Amino acid sequence: MTDLNTLGPIGLRQRIQQNTPAPAHPETVRGMGDDAAVFNWGNDYGLFATELLLEGIHFDLTYVPLKHLGYKAVTFGVSDIAAMNGLPVQITVSVGLSSRFPVEAVDELYEGIRAACTAYNVDLVGGDTTASRSGLTISVSVIGKVPKDRITYRSTAQANDVLCVTGDLGAAYLGLQLLEREKEVFLADPNMQPNLSEERSYLVQRQLRPDARTDIVHELRDLGIVPTAMIDVTDGLASELLHLCRQSGTGAVIFDENLPIDDQTHLAASEFGVSPITAALNGGEDYELLFTVRPQEFEKLANNARITAIGYLTADPAQVVLATKAGQQTPIRAQGWDEASVSNQ
Amino acid sequence: MTDLNTLGPIGLRQRIQQNTPAPAHPETVRGMGDDAAVFNWGNDYGLFATELLLEGIHFDLTYVPLKHLGYKAVTFGVSDIAAMNGLPVQITVSVGLSSRFPVEAVDELYEGIRAACTAYNVDLVGGDTTASRSGLTISVSVIGKVPKDRITYRSTAQANDVLCVTGDLGAAYLGLQLLEREKEVFLADPNMQPNLSEERSYLVQRQLRPDARTDIVHELRDLGIVPTAMIDVTDGLASELLHLCRQSGTGAVIFDENLPIDDQTHLAASEFGVSPITAALNGGEDYELLFTVRPQEFEKLANNARITAIGYLTADPAQVVLATKAGQQTPIRAQGWDEASVSNQ
Repeated sequence: MTDLNTLGPIGLRQRIQQNTPAPAHPETVRGMGDDAAVFNWGNDYGLFATELLLEGIHFDLTYVPLKHLGYKAVTFGVSDIAAMNGLPVQITVSVGLSSRFPVEAVDELYEGIRAACTAYNVDLVGGDTTASRSGLTISVSVIGKVPKDRITYRSTAQANDVLCVTGDLGAAYLGLQLLEREKEVFLADPNMQPNLSEERSYLVQRQLRPDARTDIVHELRDLGIVPTAMIDVTDGLASELLHLCRQSGTGAVIFDENLPIDDQTHLAASEFGVSPITAALNGGEDYELLFTVRPQEFEKLANNARITAIGYLTADPAQVVLATKAGQQTPIRAQGWDEASVSNQ
Repeated sequence: MTDLNTLGPIGLRQRIQQNTPAPAHPETVRGMGDDAAVFNWGNDYGLFATELLLEGIHFDLTYVPLKHLGYKAVTFGVSDIAAMNGLPVQITVSVGLSSRFPVEAVDELYEGIRAACTAYNVDLVGGDTTASRSGLTISVSVIGKVPKDRITYRSTAQANDVLCVTGDLGAAYLGLQLLEREKEVFLADPNMQPNLSEERSYLVQRQLRPDARTDIVHELRDLGIVPTAMIDVTDGLASELLHLCRQSGTGAVIFDENLPIDDQTHLAASEFGVSPITAALNGGEDYELLFTVRPQEFEKLANNARITAIGYLTADPAQVVLATKAGQQTPIRAQGWDEASVSNQ
């Protein structure tokens, strides 16, 4: 018998992928290996993605309001569709819950689910509600679509492409640190009020109620840009960049001073004694998009406040590095704080 | 605060459905309310269904081999597609598992998943593998397709239609009773060997490794029959018949002597002191199809060994009854032994 930990989540994923036969249906354009599977759907491609969220692994109900959790679960699924440059059409949400939850708690959870469905313009079309002997379980599956000439895989970037990232990075991770600290304080003395002031509200919001970047999918279409490759930043920039480079057969250089990091993230990072660069690289749960464009396309994005160029791709797959102002280069390794969850897609 | 148990699973499902807005996308042909959601997919309709299986609710690892569990999870999802008269195309399977599982256990689970994907001719295209703090969790989502003129809903049956069911009923429930009894014996004395002889193998197989009836979908097509309504028998015949009648606005008469019940089911029912009729009506997990055809269509099915006519639909929605040989009629009530799981679809 082999301990699962010796294989690790990435080894397990590879083992499952390697043993899975190639798709047999002519409708299946792409099976495992990207943010979503792809099927041939009339004029457009269909996209198909699924995510599983488990209490104690993906969320802690001590400080996660159920309404936000419902919203976040939908975000989790929709982000996979956005990462293929597509928009969601239908979603199912299945919930396993113990009878300790009152009806009002289920209402709250679904309020968040519906708010997200409205925000992302996706039809809630089904799902199971089932009893659970253990924690709260949420499973989300999404069908989306993308015009055939706009589909964007992870594996199609080339050397010299400009690496871009949306929004900012590391905030969700520091939001989690804040919430975890307040939980400790609360557990030690339940009369203490949480100290989550205004100047931290962005971090907490990024952790509790993140948004999938479907707005960027619209914007890229309006700008007439098809990225050469794209992936969503779920497990931290480092891990996603390594996926993109490995699958595209390229290396990359990113510049630490270019990483988009919010002021609140800087402040909280210093408070927790964490490097803001490390938080941006490995924090995870940002739900931003990492994508590449041809150098000649980049000027269309150059003054876009929602998109930052953080580096470029190189021809040597062995070199995925972080470059400092001083000219130092250090190899980037995947080192998510949470390596528990690995997508097979 | 309202206790979930006061609402019950059906009340909870209705509450969620009522509060969910109607689909907004023109591609969404049908949202909640059937075995699968329906979307417009070029020449065919697309079907989209999801199921969530939780340890301790849907399966007991004491006696369920992981390979069979993987197979059954796929069956669970594919059966929803068959119930719409469709065939599966793509499937995702997400698994949450604790590190107590060795790698070989994951291999076994996936062996069953892949065997089922081959049997049902469906492409395994993705899914998550994630750590779990509690029990084993499996989430299955399936995309299928059906020609537009062959799609079959629950809600379109009419009075005088003939009620048909595939295969036989109640065997999976008695298989579960056998396994539960052997578990008790084993827990009392771990040296005891399980008493699962040949003459019970059918019951155990029906519980552990049931098949979804995609063969019937092919057969109906070959016979040139489109059922007027169809649903899969997951929670027991009674419960599914009530769904079909409520959604179609009809009543029904079924004949107890017509219910297809295997000899092994009869034997085990008598051994456990259970009425075989009750097992057939309320046992659940049979994964057979309950469907209706126009009376003039029925002769095409009359001598089909895989399909049994069990009654007919009537105009009065208040009358869903079981008729005995002696001429007695008793109202049918949904009384699944396991009411824990209710599909919103």
